[in-house]
Amino acid sequence: MMEMRKPIPVGEAVARVTNEARRLDEETVPLEAAYGRILARPLIAAHDVPSFDRSPYDGYAIRAEDSAGASGGERAVFRVVDHIGAGAVSSKTLGQGEAVRIMTGAQLPAGADAVVMLEQTQEAETVSAGERGSKAGESAVPNAFTIRKAFSPGENISFRGEDMREGEEILPAGSLIHPGTVALLATFGHTEVQAAKRPIVGILSTGTELLEAGAALEPGKIRNSNGPMIAAQLRRMGVPSRMYDAAVDRLEDMLDTVRRALSECDCLITTGGVSVGDYDLLPAVYERLGADVLFNKVAMRPGSVTTVAVLEGRFLFGLSGNPSACYTGFELFARPALLKMMGAERLYPLRTKARLEEDFAKANPFARFIRAVYDGRSVRPAGFNKSNAVSSIGRGNALIVLPGGTRGFAAGDIVDVLLPGMEEGSAVWEL
Amino acid sequence: MMEMRKPIPVGEAVARVTNEARRLDEETVPLEAAYGRILARPLIAAHDVPSFDRSPYDGYAIRAEDSAGASGGERAVFRVVDHIGAGAVSSKTLGQGEAVRIMTGAQLPAGADAVVMLEQTQEAETVSAGERGSKAGESAVPNAFTIRKAFSPGENISFRGEDMREGEEILPAGSLIHPGTVALLATFGHTEVQAAKRPIVGILSTGTELLEAGAALEPGKIRNSNGPMIAAQLRRMGVPSRMYDAAVDRLEDMLDTVRRALSECDCLITTGGVSVGDYDLLPAVYERLGADVLFNKVAMRPGSVTTVAVLEGRFLFGLSGNPSACYTGFELFARPALLKMMGAERLYPLRTKARLEEDFAKANPFARFIRAVYDGRSVRPAGFNKSNAVSSIGRGNALIVLPGGTRGFAAGDIVDVLLPGMEEGSAVWEL
Repeated sequence: MMEMRKPIPVGEAVARVTNEARRLDEETVPLEAAYGRILARPLIAAHDVPSFDRSPYDGYAIRAEDSAGASGGERAVFRVVDHIGAGAVSSKTLGQGEAVRIMTGAQLPAGADAVVMLEQTQEAETVSAGERGSKAGESAVPNAFTIRKAFSPGENISFRGEDMREGEEILPAGSLIHPGTVALLATFGHTEVQAAKRPIVGILSTGTELLEAGAALEPGKIRNSNGPMIAAQLRRMGVPSRMYDAAVDRLEDMLDTVRRALSECDCLITTGGVSVGDYDLLPAVYERLGADVLFNKVAMRPGSVTTVAVLEGRFLFGLSGNPSACYTGFELFARPALLKMMGAERLYPLRTKARLEEDFAKANPFARFIRAVYDGRSVRPAGFNKSNAVSSIGRGNALIVLPGGTRGFAAGDIVDVLLPGMEEGSAVWEL
Repeated sequence: MMEMRKPIPVGEAVARVTNEARRLDEETVPLEAAYGRILARPLIAAHDVPSFDRSPYDGYAIRAEDSAGASGGERAVFRVVDHIGAGAVSSKTLGQGEAVRIMTGAQLPAGADAVVMLEQTQEAETVSAGERGSKAGESAVPNAFTIRKAFSPGENISFRGEDMREGEEILPAGSLIHPGTVALLATFGHTEVQAAKRPIVGILSTGTELLEAGAALEPGKIRNSNGPMIAAQLRRMGVPSRMYDAAVDRLEDMLDTVRRALSECDCLITTGGVSVGDYDLLPAVYERLGADVLFNKVAMRPGSVTTVAVLEGRFLFGLSGNPSACYTGFELFARPALLKMMGAERLYPLRTKARLEEDFAKANPFARFIRAVYDGRSVRPAGFNKSNAVSSIGRGNALIVLPGGTRGFAAGDIVDVLLPGMEEGSAVWEL
């Protein structure tokens, strides 16, 4: 056991963890189930987008040359020779003075090189919709129209490939598949996608004081809230979990359970038992397993006893049993490691800055993480701020970070804020 | 058909929609599946937390009076009469000069009213762990110790109820169940929770140009990307969806499909067909259904043709067929309405401010929403910025909002930014 623990800075601890993360395999996922997964391969444009020159407006496709010299006094006249909606392709090739009525998104007819917006035209002669036998919802289309200005070739055209070029890398591997990504995948005809496999994560809550969630309260005991909370933190990132149980005061039993979990999971998250208290078994577990302890003391509050070890490429996250420390330890260390295992590009919680709404008088010998409520501009502690407070965990949506070596902060100070609730985080660790 | 459409401000459109949202029923959800749901009832503390006076440190429980007058020269001596871990309760009642070795989280023994931290003590006499037959992981506990300062009654104690009081409302109904909420629910022994039912949402993509995702590209056509995107936007908020198909150019067929969808779903989201173009059938559909059109023109770009109608308490969201407009219309109108149906308190996208990284020269006659990349401090357009651009949807994590009636923005300007990727949004609409 390492009794004399030397605290390392949070950033160094994060780096030690992510450096050890090994990439998992990939698998094929149907597009409908792809939201929240990580792209295993870059998304390459399978064709130009748009894949043809098209009209960005409802209007008329014309030959620009036929509008030369048009003015308010001498309007150019066009004869409408066809009428197409989006998705239709005109069989006509425009001749002199001819136009095709065209809808937003429709392919430009042959010969056309400009689009006149509907509101730029004046009807010259009409037949009624009824006489033309139009479909329901269709309005009258004139046989001819005039315009009062000259158009240049290319005016009002969305050109083939102007959004994306065939072969272009649109998103790198490691991108989170969010709803916009799904739209891109659909655009290129992918009904399935190669995504990183999700790690299987075991959860083992230790502590002689723990009752399971459904149990009646007993003197001296509390219910296990860390296990369900971590399962939800994993679920938030789309990662499945398995719950393990062990007799919490017997080292051999704990060892058996940890060994079994490591044979069934890609990593194991334990809560509690990492201090140097008389009943903290985890240090002995790491020693008996021969696991490589990356660190067992971090210069942070709460959660300074957070320990991370590695055994045969599998992580053992030893989070503190204090709920706030446990929550923070997961977001700072476990989440980035799991994302790295999935090949993600953005491993770290998004960081912003906000105005502190209240004084925070305590000194911060270590970096301090405070559960907080962030409204987009200012931030305040989520309540009763002790590391064993559960209430503040339920109220907050952010973490205030106060750097170590500072003496206290006053209302109005600008402080760092982490947003663990953002769908996708940051590619860089900035604290 | 309403040919002369009068644009209304975005905020008014949002208010018209949320005002129409009717609350859905609630249902019982197992705690393991509760993440992402909305609390249907307030979360009330079922008991005090902590539920007993406890030690926040590893150390010794003492009677403060026995430390009176202690100093460096005249240290007070204590005899250790018991040794308890968290979860254990000592059967001893402290007598004069007696102490109980106590671990973090353990209940204070009878008679004790202060806790001395381990590092504040000096061993007076010891027996080795081996002789005491200790469990693995346990370290030696001395028989006696001394301290050099007087303790006041209550010093270093976490008092019963100091975090939460029995009967106190901890979270209001309408709160999102995030991982911290799960911890709270577990603390109070809830293995299941009353959550709002999730609406069933139908999706119908219209447009004569649309191919399904798996189809080979054809001249003049594009694949349907809006349908899968909206399904993913719904999935992001934990709401299931059903896809519908209709012959997109036949009013009667469209009507049949919309009627069927409304009988099977709580609301229907259509994409495309809401303009005044020759092939836009939705205005006729609303008219034939006798639906109450809340608005059919919003002073925003893209998506000014966004239409929302209500029929017998069910929403018809008519989103624009342009991907960016469709994405934005969902987040601005459909998401708040669906959240309101679930009784949620925080309906609107979280808004923050950030420094614009690039000039944006266009004038903004209407409020403009621009897909953007936000890094916690500054923000930039996500790319090729046209409402029919798909690429920018895949690249962004935020929306820049430029108010209507402005003339263009320069790099360095502070602009409004919406964060649709935040787990929980804002209770107020602020634009």
